[in-house]
Amino acid sequence: MEKIVEQTLLYDFYGKLLTEHQKSIYEDVILNDYSLSEIAEENGISRQGVHDLVKRCNKILKDYEEKLHLVEKFIETKDMVNKINQLTKDYLQSKDIQCIEEIQEISNHIVKNF
Amino acid sequence: MEKIVEQTLLYDFYGKLLTEHQKSIYEDVILNDYSLSEIAEENGISRQGVHDLVKRCNKILKDYEEKLHLVEKFIETKDMVNKINQLTKDYLQSKDIQCIEEIQEISNHIVKNF
Repeated sequence: MEKIVEQTLLYDFYGKLLTEHQKSIYEDVILNDYSLSEIAEENGISRQGVHDLVKRCNKILKDYEEKLHLVEKFIETKDMVNKINQLTKDYLQSKDIQCIEEIQEISNHIVKNF
Repeated sequence: MEKIVEQTLLYDFYGKLLTEHQKSIYEDVILNDYSLSEIAEENGISRQGVHDLVKRCNKILKDYEEKLHLVEKFIETKDMVNKINQLTKDYLQSKDIQCIEEIQEISNHIVKNF
């Protein structure tokens, strides 16, 4: 996965567990794409300080994912639901009943693996 | 939701964030349904100590859910996937094309709200 996508996803899931200060700076760097110098000046800390804080936040977010695997689980489920969506389109075109059976299998699999 | 179901779900999602000691005692009380006295004796702590530890764990797990809402999100998704599963059965019986359209809507909704 692209690094920025991974960071955004991890932040979406676990960002609420960071402190307000961490969230504010992390968002400016990762989501708003401000330069380290701008953020450093605005917050009265050094560029190195901003860099270290982002590194520390990345580690915190990754540690949560390593323990909980919830981003991984959500991505898997989303992929399967996308597949279901595609199968409904295939079915409307082809009227092949196998599409319906496949939707049934996938939805069973999702429900059982929750 | 029934309290024991809620506790089990919260533990499934966030249990890995507890310490080994907390996990071991929490599992004995909530999942294995041992008595407080048994667990107290086995771990060389008081019944009150076991009670307090479980209460503290419940609070930790609830605090994570209050911040992240991931159990809530998973339950919602599971309900919708169950509905998709039911609609495939309905369709195979009735051959009503509305069932397929509804599957399409629900799967779109899940993917967009992830």
